[in-house]
Formats: sequence, structure tokens, C-alpha cells
Amino acid sequence: MSLKQRRDDEYYMRRAISLARRGTGQTSPNPLVGCVIVKEDTIVAEGYHRSYGMPHAEVEALQRAGDGAKGATVYVNLEPCAHFGKTPPCAPQLARSKVSRVVIGMVDPNAVVNGKGVEILRSNQLITETGVLEDECKWVNRGFIRRVRDQRPWFTLKSASTIDGQIALPNGESQWITSEESRNKAHLLRAEHDGIMVGVGTVLRDDPSLTVRHTVGRSPIRIVVDTMLRTPADAAILRGDGAIILAGISAQKMGKHDQLSKAGAEIYYLPEKNNRVDLRSAAIILGERGLNSVLVEGGATLASAFIQEKLIDGLSLFIAPTIMGQGISLFKEIVVPSLDKLIRFRVLNMSRTGRDIWIEGVPECSPDL
Amino acid sequence: MSLKQRRDDEYYMRRAISLARRGTGQTSPNPLVGCVIVKEDTIVAEGYHRSYGMPHAEVEALQRAGDGAKGATVYVNLEPCAHFGKTPPCAPQLARSKVSRVVIGMVDPNAVVNGKGVEILRSNQLITETGVLEDECKWVNRGFIRRVRDQRPWFTLKSASTIDGQIALPNGESQWITSEESRNKAHLLRAEHDGIMVGVGTVLRDDPSLTVRHTVGRSPIRIVVDTMLRTPADAAILRGDGAIILAGISAQKMGKHDQLSKAGAEIYYLPEKNNRVDLRSAAIILGERGLNSVLVEGGATLASAFIQEKLIDGLSLFIAPTIMGQGISLFKEIVVPSLDKLIRFRVLNMSRTGRDIWIEGVPECSPDL
Repeated sequence: MSLKQRRDDEYYMRRAISLARRGTGQTSPNPLVGCVIVKEDTIVAEGYHRSYGMPHAEVEALQRAGDGAKGATVYVNLEPCAHFGKTPPCAPQLARSKVSRVVIGMVDPNAVVNGKGVEILRSNQLITETGVLEDECKWVNRGFIRRVRDQRPWFTLKSASTIDGQIALPNGESQWITSEESRNKAHLLRAEHDGIMVGVGTVLRDDPSLTVRHTVGRSPIRIVVDTMLRTPADAAILRGDGAIILAGISAQKMGKHDQLSKAGAEIYYLPEKNNRVDLRSAAIILGERGLNSVLVEGGATLASAFIQEKLIDGLSLFIAPTIMGQGISLFKEIVVPSLDKLIRFRVLNMSRTGRDIWIEGVPECSPDL
Repeated sequence: MSLKQRRDDEYYMRRAISLARRGTGQTSPNPLVGCVIVKEDTIVAEGYHRSYGMPHAEVEALQRAGDGAKGATVYVNLEPCAHFGKTPPCAPQLARSKVSRVVIGMVDPNAVVNGKGVEILRSNQLITETGVLEDECKWVNRGFIRRVRDQRPWFTLKSASTIDGQIALPNGESQWITSEESRNKAHLLRAEHDGIMVGVGTVLRDDPSLTVRHTVGRSPIRIVVDTMLRTPADAAILRGDGAIILAGISAQKMGKHDQLSKAGAEIYYLPEKNNRVDLRSAAIILGERGLNSVLVEGGATLASAFIQEKLIDGLSLFIAPTIMGQGISLFKEIVVPSLDKLIRFRVLNMSRTGRDIWIEGVPECSPDL
């Protein structure tokens, strides 16, 4: 491959990725996909998967390109599908449209596709490349990959703390540790995830609504980890639609089911571990439910448990430049026996939000994509 | 003043400041001063104060300029001195050298100068401007200003912690939390300060030498806050020269004085507050001793006390991207009654050192310069 072609391929793939991102928060359980059709160094048409049930990116782009697609190169960040879902498969449509070359960011990890799309293209004499900007393509669909491959959502832990790691005063007061800018950014994070999760302690103490405010975006499904079904039927979290309660198996006989169900909650009864909902089982249920990504917002009990179960894939830490001294630490329940057992993560991004610091990272124990 | 002149003035003042910085760690109790002599848009000569006892920046630059100084503009970040110290005063020398204009960053806060240098220049018909890049000039000499105006050094608190604010495991193990790159950077910080301070707890537990390693630079004076004179006579901190022990007044009768003094320590007996050395008195003693800047390296007792006494002027926080959970927090002794009483600081700089994060800030309670 010529250097020019490699450069062009990466250039247009980057464009496809950025189109894909525009569907963030709207496409689950589907992946984020963008498509660019290029002929003679010119973009003929583009498309992206806007939301679940809407056309796939390739179809949108092909329709717009019309005859212009003939002999063109198609860039798509994820392998075109080979199976009938809500819409007909894309790979055969690409073949029919007489494009000459298809450049694919990554092969679809979904077993019903996984290489079959590429096979269809190649058997139709289309020149097909795969693995262009593969890491970037995997990152943009990290939630989809996690669910399809590990049967669970990508969990991002979000926190708002002081520089000395405290999330609340000893008396529980926590509003507000971080600045308005950070809180607005946190709402944006919510809109980018399919679900938002808290422990029942947070529901009982703060009665949050967990909706997306201060920004444009769909509110994610609200999820409460509530071993003993202590969520009140009039909790703010149950208003509007889309609330899931993850209860312990022993709560099934508590007779609160009908009351909470009537209030709009979808309730799952899960195995228990140390008298709490087993989080690995909870993760699997949420994967089955079609959630690609869940934002874990705490409090300390839930956050510590998620870290200890090695279920956190991403960290989004808002840190105020303040010192509290004695308070409640988000990770107060974690005990490590020696310094070589510290829970390590890699900093991916570091920026300012208002007067605060915003750090995004990936735990080293998170499985590779 | 023309726009060109203003731009030129700031340009050459910036150069003077960067020359001044080259004396960092070498000039105390003197300030950091750089001088640039400019004629017809060309630098004729430059100079800076290299170390205590060496010529002042203006004298060095004037000597190099020779006759070239006639009619030139002189840029200097601090008001030229008007008094005899180790060397003759600079202001009259500037007048004699027939320069035509003197541009001064900031007036000297030292009472023996404070405007007198400017007066001498003006009475000799030299056009004299002051306050060019004043904030930057104040920042570079923040230690000198703090000592001269507030009779105490500039205290920088340095810490190495996890992202959840822990500096050691519950058993005290702390080597190492941060990466090698961060530790090397911390040695550079030591070389930039006149003194380095720890509590006696750190001496008893770690027996650190507190010298500058892994970088070029003079080792700062070692200072131990040791209310009860518990520092062992064979402590590593007493080897080599320049160790100060700040003891409580009640330790005077402990009979350990001669032993520690023979081991090389300079011992001061200070008033006590809650059975500990009164840190405000300690600060004044260090100011009298000619220290412009002191790096406070902990541990938790000393750091908490310094924060509570509102004596910290700068924070230099090395934060490893790790979670410890239960451990020892640097600020464990601090208690704030409500969120509006958090100890706030302003982030000045945020960068990466190896895999760690390095945050530099200024507490909001630190007196203005």
C-alpha cells in the first residue's frame, strides 16, 4: 500500500469515527457506526447510525451517494453486518452498490457477524482492508465490545472529591464539593451512558432523580443496587420511565415487589455475596438488558465494591482543589495488604473544569478491548 | 508610552526575569535579580545575581557593557538597591554609568530600599518606570518578599499521595507511592528551596538524609520540628552541615542539647502551643535565619498543623494514579465544620511526571504578595 493511500485511509477513517460518535447515547444495544464514501479524493456521501431502529450508517451513506457510490471507497469504523436484525444486512448492500473498495476499522466482535461481513465483501470481489485505526475504533465502541464479548456493560466510575480524596463530610454533607462546571460536565457524562447506577444508601440519603440536566441528551436508565428492597415507592428515581432495581434473592419474599413495580421499577432478584447483591451477576443482567455502558455514581459502599470486584473499566474523577481532612472517602471500604497491591490505573486525559481538575483513566485490571 | 515601547519593555523584562531565575536556590537571603541593558533594539549586556556574596545583577551587566551603557535602557526585575550591604549600592552606579532610562519590575519591599533606589535614579534625571510585569516579578521573588514583608519564609507543602489522598499504608509503609520521575522532580524542588522541613516523626521512622540527589543543586538546610528533642544524635539528617532543630521551650531542660549540638545541629527553643512547637514562632525564627523558602515534606502531623496555622503559601502535590482505600492521609488531623470551610487553593499548574500527576497551587488563605 502506498504511503498516500495509508494516510488517506486513516484520514477518512478518523472522519468515520467522528461521525460514529454523533450517535453516542442513542444507539444501544447497537454499536456506534459512521460511514464515509470517497471517490477521487472527494467525499461523495456520509452517514451514521443515529439511534436504535434507524438505518445503519452504510445504508444512510449509500442512499445519499446514489450512483456516486460506483467505484468508490467506503470507510466504516465497524465491520458491516451480515445478518437480518431490525434492518437488512449491510454487507450485501455494499456489494450490490458496486463500490470497489471497503476499508473497515475493526471486525465486529458480535458472533453473528464476526468476519462474515468481510467474507461477503471479499466473495463479491470487493477489495477489503481491516484494522485501520483499530485502537481508536475499539475505544469508541468500548461499551458495545464489552457487552458483546464479556456479556456485561462498560462501567465508568464517576466521583467528585477533594484533593485529599473525600467525597463528603463525616456527617454526609456533600453538596457541593465540585464546581458548577464540573457538575455540568457530569451531566454530559450521564447522557453518554445507557445507564446510571447508585447504591440504595444514596437513594435513601439524597433521593436523587438522576436525570440529565444542564445539557442536551436523553436520560439514561436509572439503576439502584438495593439488596433488601429498601427503595421507597415514592423515590424520585422511580418517576418517569426506565428504573431498574437490582435486589438480592432474599428480598423476593419481602412483599414490596408489587408496590415498587407499580411505581415503575423493573426488579431483578440476584444471587448475594456477603449479604449484598453479587455485582458480577448484576453486571450480566444489565448486559442481557442491552446496556452497553453504565455510569456508577456511588456512594462509597457501591464504589468500593465495584473496585474490589474489578468491574470498573473507566474512571472519571472530578477533583476540587480543596482539602477536607477528616471525611468520607469514596474508597473507604477498600483494604490493600501492601503497596504493590495498590489499584493502579492509567491516566488517559487530564483537564480543567472550572476551578477543578478532571481526570479520566482506565484501571490496569480492566480486560483489554 | 508607545505600544512598541510597552511591548519592548515587557519583552526585555521577561528576559531579565528568566536571567534572575538562574540564581534559584543560591542567593538567599538576597533576592533573585536579572538585568538586561538594551540600546537601539539590541542587547548590549546582561547579568544576574549568581549567589550570595557575588556581584548584584546590575553591576555585572554594567561592567560587561562598559561604555556601551551610555544612553542605554536598563531592565531589572527588582528595584536597584540604595544601601551598602556586602557590595556597594547599585542605584548610584547606574546614575554614574550615564544610562538614560531604567525600567523596574517591582519596587523592593525591603525597608532599607523601598523606593529609595527609584528616588536616587530620578534625582539623577534618569527616566524611571516601575511595575512592568509586576506580578511575574513578584512571583519569582515570592520567597524574598514573604520574608522581608511578613518576616517568615515562603512555605511550600510537598506531598506524594494516591488519587484517594493516602500517603502511606495503615502500617506506615510509603516507599514508594509515586514514580521515579516524580521523586526526581521532588529532588529538583528541594534544590530550589533554602530549607527542607520534616517532623521528628519522619526522622524517627524513616531516618531520611533529605539531601538533593538525582539532580544538580545545593542541598537545602535540613529542619526538624522536634518539640521534645527526640532526634537521635546519629540521625542521617545531622550528617553534613546545615541542620536546624526547632524544639519546644520545655525541652531546654532535657540535657540533650550538647549531644545534638556536637552532632552539628543548630537548636532553637520556641514557645509551645497544644504541647507542640508553635509554628508561627518557628516561621519567624527561620525568617530571621535568612531563609526565603522552605519545603515542608511532612509527615501528616506537620502538614496538618501547617495547613491549620494557615502558613502554607504553595502546594506541590504529586499524585499517583492508584487507589489505596484505607491508609494514612496527609491531612488526617484536619477537621472542617462545614463545606464552606474547606481549605481552598487555586491550581496554577497541572502536568504529568511519569505516570503520575503533578499539581501546583496556592492556598486562598495565603497572604497576597
